[in-house]
Amino acid sequence: MSEKVSIEPLPAYTSAEEARALAGVTAAKGFRAAGVTAGLKPSGKPDVALVVNDGPHDVAAGVFTTNRVCAAPVRVSRAALERNRSARAMILNSGGANACTGQQGLADALATRQHVSDLLGCEPDEVQVASTGMIGVLLPMDTLLAGTDDAFAKLSADGGADAAQAIMTTDTVAKQAQVTADAGYTIGGMAKGAGMLAPGLATMLVCITTDAVIAQERLETALQQAVEVSFNRADSDGCMSTNDTVLLMSSGASGVEADDEFEQLLAPLCVDLARQLLSDAEGASHDIAVTTINAASEADALEVSRAVARSNLFKTAIFGNDPNWGRVVSEVGTTQAAFEPENLSVAMNGVWVARNGGVGDSRDLVDLSAQRDVHVEIDLKAGNASATIWTNDLTHDYVEENSAYST
Amino acid sequence: MSEKVSIEPLPAYTSAEEARALAGVTAAKGFRAAGVTAGLKPSGKPDVALVVNDGPHDVAAGVFTTNRVCAAPVRVSRAALERNRSARAMILNSGGANACTGQQGLADALATRQHVSDLLGCEPDEVQVASTGMIGVLLPMDTLLAGTDDAFAKLSADGGADAAQAIMTTDTVAKQAQVTADAGYTIGGMAKGAGMLAPGLATMLVCITTDAVIAQERLETALQQAVEVSFNRADSDGCMSTNDTVLLMSSGASGVEADDEFEQLLAPLCVDLARQLLSDAEGASHDIAVTTINAASEADALEVSRAVARSNLFKTAIFGNDPNWGRVVSEVGTTQAAFEPENLSVAMNGVWVARNGGVGDSRDLVDLSAQRDVHVEIDLKAGNASATIWTNDLTHDYVEENSAYST
Repeated sequence: MSEKVSIEPLPAYTSAEEARALAGVTAAKGFRAAGVTAGLKPSGKPDVALVVNDGPHDVAAGVFTTNRVCAAPVRVSRAALERNRSARAMILNSGGANACTGQQGLADALATRQHVSDLLGCEPDEVQVASTGMIGVLLPMDTLLAGTDDAFAKLSADGGADAAQAIMTTDTVAKQAQVTADAGYTIGGMAKGAGMLAPGLATMLVCITTDAVIAQERLETALQQAVEVSFNRADSDGCMSTNDTVLLMSSGASGVEADDEFEQLLAPLCVDLARQLLSDAEGASHDIAVTTINAASEADALEVSRAVARSNLFKTAIFGNDPNWGRVVSEVGTTQAAFEPENLSVAMNGVWVARNGGVGDSRDLVDLSAQRDVHVEIDLKAGNASATIWTNDLTHDYVEENSAYST
Repeated sequence: MSEKVSIEPLPAYTSAEEARALAGVTAAKGFRAAGVTAGLKPSGKPDVALVVNDGPHDVAAGVFTTNRVCAAPVRVSRAALERNRSARAMILNSGGANACTGQQGLADALATRQHVSDLLGCEPDEVQVASTGMIGVLLPMDTLLAGTDDAFAKLSADGGADAAQAIMTTDTVAKQAQVTADAGYTIGGMAKGAGMLAPGLATMLVCITTDAVIAQERLETALQQAVEVSFNRADSDGCMSTNDTVLLMSSGASGVEADDEFEQLLAPLCVDLARQLLSDAEGASHDIAVTTINAASEADALEVSRAVARSNLFKTAIFGNDPNWGRVVSEVGTTQAAFEPENLSVAMNGVWVARNGGVGDSRDLVDLSAQRDVHVEIDLKAGNASATIWTNDLTHDYVEENSAYST
């Protein structure tokens, strides 16, 4: 007599092949983009992306890392957005994070946006700057600014895919998503951040564009809510890296007012991008969703799911295709969430391997080797709230990639 | 112009060779112990240990896991100690944790201590029970009780080393330490818990004995303080496994009153055992001490050291012998501790690779491959407090051991 799995199936997400064919940040009208090779990366791969909002509107909203040790571009861009709540362009580079670079780093970020604003004929405060790569190294400014000129020259209404390529670091595929509302407006975006998705997203950069006509206040609230249920739940603890940035710009070029559907489309688009990030996480062999159900509150559900998702013991067990529920309940026991240990049940891919604090259905019914997706459900039997945290397994490749290379 | 490393060198600890030759829990007068093979482990290695306090005193104190999903022996032993604050014996088994085993598990723990109390002719409440091994499996009670009889028959005043062997699980060496005060009394102990020292100690069992004459209240306070600066700082977050137990028993058999030195000897003995645990942690290639100095408070120093010690990115970098200070300052930035990012400095094995929020002395001065010990110091320049957390690097062997075997 198996209990019913009481939650909805996990949302699907855009595959790497599908993503490659999308227009991403140039799917919405009023945007041009480019991605070029400036020479910041030893590999010679594209490393500078420019996204330009040709209007007529220029409202923008951003969510930045909560890390107190934040990079120069974050400090510059956050302050500009707080002053202006608008953006005409975003200049992004891979090949150097411009973090822990002191006064010179700040001057470099300011010089970069000044350069772009000169090219576009706008105010420096209307240019957002984002960087990703190694911490503690100054950017070679001549190289970066020459690349910026090149990107400006190559701006195109179908340059989204090139831009998505140019922001990759250890990503193996570009991440893009887009959606068009029944009302006629479009939302599209790109993301990078392959690695280190646990214990914290290290340099996740996201640029989202829309041609909906929308007020800045609503854009900002919608973005914050969407980030909370997507990127913040792909991360294990909400603590971000020194450089993380999510920017949303609206051109209003569709001429269509954002309807009630806007928020209903933006959040899933962010979840889609977040799941693309996880599926390309460094060295992962399983994508794991940890869903806590029947919690007394959403905060409880999040705390429990995060505790399990952060556990190296749990993550190595999943790598070993071992439905080790002992490591799950042990982590649940470290939380402050409301539950009684004798009521705890745990399912792995639909099989309730632990029931009411003890042994449940046979582990042999769970074959984790058969698929990449692993869905862990934890039933607290303490209320009606639920929440999911996404993570990956902990693998040899994760250790290899993160021990062999400086980042 | 290198800054001076301003803290004391890390304490030394008993080597595996030295530990093997010690008497451990039978170093103090008034104690007998045994370690035997009952057959709980498929390997046929010793799996039942019995430690008996022959008095004249029987005061005892314990520290148990804070995990709300705690094993049956923890529930039984904690309740008994709260009632009696004394113990005549401790029965320990490896080969099965008796956790998540429901009412039958509780009955089994009670039956085990009843069996020992019958053998000794004492109250069941005067017998502490501890188990370690796989979660969610019932103990084979006939096998365990037969092993208990065998251990009772083999009790000996020099059985400490045998007992230390019998509590090992994935430990590769037995852990023992002992010290004799100038006043003439002795403290000795044994510990197990090789694996999974991050993110949480999984089933750490510690038994410490002393022949000092000491009041129970003082014994309890001394143990709590010693655990706080030792086992709780070898762990990354203070969250323990389902079974963790630290027991301290006094026989008073030396006839010597505990003097002021008692606490000064107990805490370092616990640090010694904790460092032995870390040096035998599953798959580790580096022992890491993360010391935060010049913090506004000890709580701040602990928060910062723990945040860094928990970071998989930091731990994989150390495995790769990479003095990656960017991963250190990035973790520091996620804490609530008082500091200004532009004042942060980080040293690795004495070299200040980051100074005042930016690049410091050359990484090339740090050769982490040359030794097992890695000492990271983080200078917050915000006060006078400091604290150290001990951890290990994250290695291929860690992933292998924790993915290949159920625990």
